[in-house]
Amino acid sequence: MSSASPPPVSPLAPASQPDLPPVPGVRLATAQAGIRYAGRTDVLYVGLAEGTVPAGVFTRSKCPSAPVDWCREALKGGAARALVVNSGNANAFTGQRGRDSVALTARIAAAAAPCAETDVFIASTGVIGEPLDAAKFEGVLADCAARAEDGAEAWAAAAQAIMTTDTFPKRATRRAEIAGTPVTINGIAKGAGMIAPDMATMLSFVFTDAALPQPVAQALLAAGVNTSFNCVTVDGDTSTSDTLMLFATGQAGNAAVSDAADPRLAGFKAALDDLLIELAQLVAKDGEGARKFVTVAVEGAENDASAHRIAMSIANSPLVKTAVAGEDANWGRVVMAVGKAGEPADRDRLAIWFGDVRVAVAGARDPDYSEAAASAAMREPDILIRVDLGLGQGRARVWTCDLTKAYVEINGDYRS
Amino acid sequence: MSSASPPPVSPLAPASQPDLPPVPGVRLATAQAGIRYAGRTDVLYVGLAEGTVPAGVFTRSKCPSAPVDWCREALKGGAARALVVNSGNANAFTGQRGRDSVALTARIAAAAAPCAETDVFIASTGVIGEPLDAAKFEGVLADCAARAEDGAEAWAAAAQAIMTTDTFPKRATRRAEIAGTPVTINGIAKGAGMIAPDMATMLSFVFTDAALPQPVAQALLAAGVNTSFNCVTVDGDTSTSDTLMLFATGQAGNAAVSDAADPRLAGFKAALDDLLIELAQLVAKDGEGARKFVTVAVEGAENDASAHRIAMSIANSPLVKTAVAGEDANWGRVVMAVGKAGEPADRDRLAIWFGDVRVAVAGARDPDYSEAAASAAMREPDILIRVDLGLGQGRARVWTCDLTKAYVEINGDYRS
Repeated sequence: MSSASPPPVSPLAPASQPDLPPVPGVRLATAQAGIRYAGRTDVLYVGLAEGTVPAGVFTRSKCPSAPVDWCREALKGGAARALVVNSGNANAFTGQRGRDSVALTARIAAAAAPCAETDVFIASTGVIGEPLDAAKFEGVLADCAARAEDGAEAWAAAAQAIMTTDTFPKRATRRAEIAGTPVTINGIAKGAGMIAPDMATMLSFVFTDAALPQPVAQALLAAGVNTSFNCVTVDGDTSTSDTLMLFATGQAGNAAVSDAADPRLAGFKAALDDLLIELAQLVAKDGEGARKFVTVAVEGAENDASAHRIAMSIANSPLVKTAVAGEDANWGRVVMAVGKAGEPADRDRLAIWFGDVRVAVAGARDPDYSEAAASAAMREPDILIRVDLGLGQGRARVWTCDLTKAYVEINGDYRS
Repeated sequence: MSSASPPPVSPLAPASQPDLPPVPGVRLATAQAGIRYAGRTDVLYVGLAEGTVPAGVFTRSKCPSAPVDWCREALKGGAARALVVNSGNANAFTGQRGRDSVALTARIAAAAAPCAETDVFIASTGVIGEPLDAAKFEGVLADCAARAEDGAEAWAAAAQAIMTTDTFPKRATRRAEIAGTPVTINGIAKGAGMIAPDMATMLSFVFTDAALPQPVAQALLAAGVNTSFNCVTVDGDTSTSDTLMLFATGQAGNAAVSDAADPRLAGFKAALDDLLIELAQLVAKDGEGARKFVTVAVEGAENDASAHRIAMSIANSPLVKTAVAGEDANWGRVVMAVGKAGEPADRDRLAIWFGDVRVAVAGARDPDYSEAAASAAMREPDILIRVDLGLGQGRARVWTCDLTKAYVEINGDYRS
């Protein structure tokens, strides 16, 4: 943001932020590298203990950023020792210069860690198409590596440093046990526009001291993204840079479990899924210009995948989202969004609720519907739009935010 | 719109509107049926001479309106004698009452025409989910049928009566010859939100005195929609009511041509296509809140269908559309939209232009790119976004408008 006054904090921001506990094997530091922003931190360095296992899910964009290409390749090595994240410049659509820039970043980070270049993971967020001068990391990352620490303040600073148009930092923590050994999971994320499903939306990094074989970490992350970040949308636009990574340091010393479906991992899996959902919801709550947090719940679809596509059609509809902004219980636009999804639907079996108020049933307005009650539901900051298709057992739940004039304002004046 | 002051006319409205000539066999009248609006016409009645052939293309929504269901069925009869269009209420998602309402409208119109009920075509536009009291047409349609006429004023009034949030009426005319016989084509259309491809967007009615067998009329219309209304999008939302119909009265007395591909129809086809493009562009120019008319031209795709999907991805991207509103030559968002389309694309072969200014080439910023020149192009009311994928010969061209705060304003306060 180049505007003089920072945007106000989203009214949907949580009242308080959790203090994140240490995750053994993870140390963090932030710095001002001067990539784009003045007077704020714009680079996060995370040092990871030897033996750390990485997992990652990335954008499905056909035009991914140079850092995404790098991470996909580095994942094959199966080891992680450092993560570098910068905000302000996405290093996307920057051609050979972008690839050189990522390589230089890896070189500088590897010297700082120290570690092999292929053990460095990199993510960038911000403007697309501008060359990123990675030489600015020279000195900065070595200094970060020297002073990286594991306290709550370091975690808070990390969540702060990766923000772009986010109005509040996003962090979450969970505890779990694996075969009787307690483990910790910490996560941070950033949004807040160009958010859509079809991949691990935006940037999010999750760290645990659990010992997990790489295929297990990857399987757990890939499963978790489906019920969390792939269920959140702000504007239907898919970033070139979306990255979700999980780093497992193994310092907890739990027994190794080689199958993601092993019951001994059930508690960990539940905690990870829950943490990912919390982070994903925070992203929707900080959607650009958001004033309402919207849950779209679809049931009675032919199957879950169909329910998901219908829910996303509703959540991505500009007409639905502007109606929510206007606190208008406009179920007609929900019908429209169901209809355009292209999924099996029978107009005459549809039922629709706003909050607890059933506004439509059997393909028409609910005869008992109270406009006053529906309007009251729309005035809440949290809005539930529930649709029953009446066809089968398929269900899905996704999260989004309203579409306000502030979204247009933020995005009509981002680059200039 | 229930707001006290009418919206200002779109700055993209044409400086002048054409006077439409008579189309022999077509007479029109408008009235105030009091469906929803006060102090303006809200119903259009068109009387069609015996022998008129209908053709139609309708929304692909899985939740179509009751009038769309009616027209699909009536088309099978192959004959048209009357068209009734009302604005203010879409009669969509109104259940059995909606079907009854359409049947009653047909009965009233058939008595007025007079004709068989199955020769009546019906379209409704406006709010979804509210019962439409068709009894209000009683008397009104008979009066319309009695005073229907074919002058320029009647055509102008027709274009006016079908408007909802449109800020200007949309009409166009063409002349052509079929086998040496001159024919006329007149068309009217209305937009202006819930506009997306995947069907004949919004309501548009085209009338010609050409004699065309029904399969030929249908084939010509179905082909024409692909390069016109299916290439325009305002917000990516697909209406439950979208209807494009062509009525051919046959009064010109041209030789019957039984094959749509017959060279004797080439001139007529070109004129029809051109008229449909003009109407489609007028819809984009009157997109809700539009301040910029945007042409997205994609070339070098693997094939035309792929080019079309990429062009629509760009045209539907909220981030691209807000950048245009902000007069920001933000090619990074164009890259994003290409990437999210899911179509074959090679980041490192992409080239992008705003107007005549090439801003990106070979996967990076054009080294010769002038920010000042690009900014000047963005200040124009007509914006061309051109993308060359560098892969093949596929090309497509679509039209849209920018996404402004006025769009949010209009749609956040439509129903209340």
